[in-house]
Amino acid sequence: MAKLRLALVQMRMGADPAANLQHALDLTTSALRDGAQLVCLPELFRSRYFCQSEDAGQFDLAETIPGPSTGAFARLAAEHGATIVLSLFERRAPGLYHNTAAVLDGSRGLVGCYRKMHIPDDPRYYEKYYFTPGDLGFRVHETAAGRLGVLVCWDQWYPEAARLTALQGAEILIYPTAIGWHPEEKAAVGERQHAAWETIQRAHAIANGCFVVAINRSGFEPEPGAPETGQAGIEFWGQSFVAGPDGRVIVRGAADREELLQVEIDTGEIERQRQGWPFLRDRRIDAYDGITRRFIDEAG
Amino acid sequence: MAKLRLALVQMRMGADPAANLQHALDLTTSALRDGAQLVCLPELFRSRYFCQSEDAGQFDLAETIPGPSTGAFARLAAEHGATIVLSLFERRAPGLYHNTAAVLDGSRGLVGCYRKMHIPDDPRYYEKYYFTPGDLGFRVHETAAGRLGVLVCWDQWYPEAARLTALQGAEILIYPTAIGWHPEEKAAVGERQHAAWETIQRAHAIANGCFVVAINRSGFEPEPGAPETGQAGIEFWGQSFVAGPDGRVIVRGAADREELLQVEIDTGEIERQRQGWPFLRDRRIDAYDGITRRFIDEAG
Repeated sequence: MAKLRLALVQMRMGADPAANLQHALDLTTSALRDGAQLVCLPELFRSRYFCQSEDAGQFDLAETIPGPSTGAFARLAAEHGATIVLSLFERRAPGLYHNTAAVLDGSRGLVGCYRKMHIPDDPRYYEKYYFTPGDLGFRVHETAAGRLGVLVCWDQWYPEAARLTALQGAEILIYPTAIGWHPEEKAAVGERQHAAWETIQRAHAIANGCFVVAINRSGFEPEPGAPETGQAGIEFWGQSFVAGPDGRVIVRGAADREELLQVEIDTGEIERQRQGWPFLRDRRIDAYDGITRRFIDEAG
Repeated sequence: MAKLRLALVQMRMGADPAANLQHALDLTTSALRDGAQLVCLPELFRSRYFCQSEDAGQFDLAETIPGPSTGAFARLAAEHGATIVLSLFERRAPGLYHNTAAVLDGSRGLVGCYRKMHIPDDPRYYEKYYFTPGDLGFRVHETAAGRLGVLVCWDQWYPEAARLTALQGAEILIYPTAIGWHPEEKAAVGERQHAAWETIQRAHAIANGCFVVAINRSGFEPEPGAPETGQAGIEFWGQSFVAGPDGRVIVRGAADREELLQVEIDTGEIERQRQGWPFLRDRRIDAYDGITRRFIDEAG
């Protein structure tokens, strides 16, 4: 038995980054007072999801790591002896920015970073403009809350990312996320899109016999210049969740509002599950070379 | 638009292999008369699931490929100009046996084989005793019904198998399967087990933007010497299904009976789906080397 109290901060973001930061600190403090040992924030929680347009002015939102956000949360982590996973817009050098997750561990402070490896680019998700692809690879962070594998949003569609992190011993795969509906598509495909998102992450839990935590934002955010309500923007779908090593959903947040999700998990379940379904035993590592090819044709 | 009529033969097997073969031929004929262009049989449909015990006498069930089963189905495939996927116990050489899928394509006859790469071994699923792990790797078969990626049962738990097959251009991943409940566990974990099985295969469809077809057997089969009804055996859970490239379940069979599932799919959906969710574009092939390691620790 290795019980762990998790908190997922499913936030709604406003236009003012300073207010978002304070709100995130307040919600985190509340979770820590309730006994959370591991608190996870959603992707890029300090601001609205600025990637809805390509605008050089948005680079000013970036900050260094360590920097003001890691500093503010590190104080909370130290005060409560807790572990906190933050998703930040990292300014690494002038003109070089990453979508980065930082892991803060009690009095140890900042113990590791992960820079988002898979970068999307779709209408209203223009991330390739802002974020240099990560160069730290897939990682596991040893913390008081266990061995944490932190990945970010678009990574969640890649079984390779989950596998490579789990093979380093991750007990929990954590995905800070910013995903939502295009309002004009929601009626036609919204339900299927959400189902696919939850399904593939549950599958990472199953394939690897570990826990998966996905923390999404909620609420509607307009495109630059569009009205605060309407169709021109993204309706973030919330529904943050925790899945167990058998893929069952242990807790799931609401679709339409902020929510501080708190749940206790037992990481002892990991080894029991893997004994029952010994997938790691039977991997055909002699036959997986082609995974590093773009496509298995004559050119690839 | 590339419409294709599929048939999934969710069979229940009796004790007599000759009767099972004839029943499979009859069901396949029925599907072909209804217009099926691709017919898929469940894993090892010629017999009951003999891997519930380790018994050298069962090796007599194996046959060569080509052999009597491929011959009988090749006649049907040629007569109807259809494609048929068979799962067979292959006798490759004296003392060397595989769990093999054969692809028959109209008048072309036997166009390819796949030998199960991942071999399970669990209580009542003693496959490592019977089956030498496959040495043909992951493959795609060009047929009149499209580019088929055939995998077998336990492979369905491995994202690597689905990915490597899809990267060769597979439009449909086909999993002949023999999976069921231990009756004594069903009340406690049966629902979760089935959900995990369906979830991870839907995830292969999502990750790779292709169709997935899983064909399971149905019915209770006792352990050797046990009564025909009771607890000592496997209750195969049926629930064969087809998933689309967005992961939605298009059709699902019953849990408790034989069923000939017939459905039309549109393989044109594959490219539209991949354009909407361009996962193949963003794979970090520079960072996936570790997939070929057993575990990413000092020893691995």
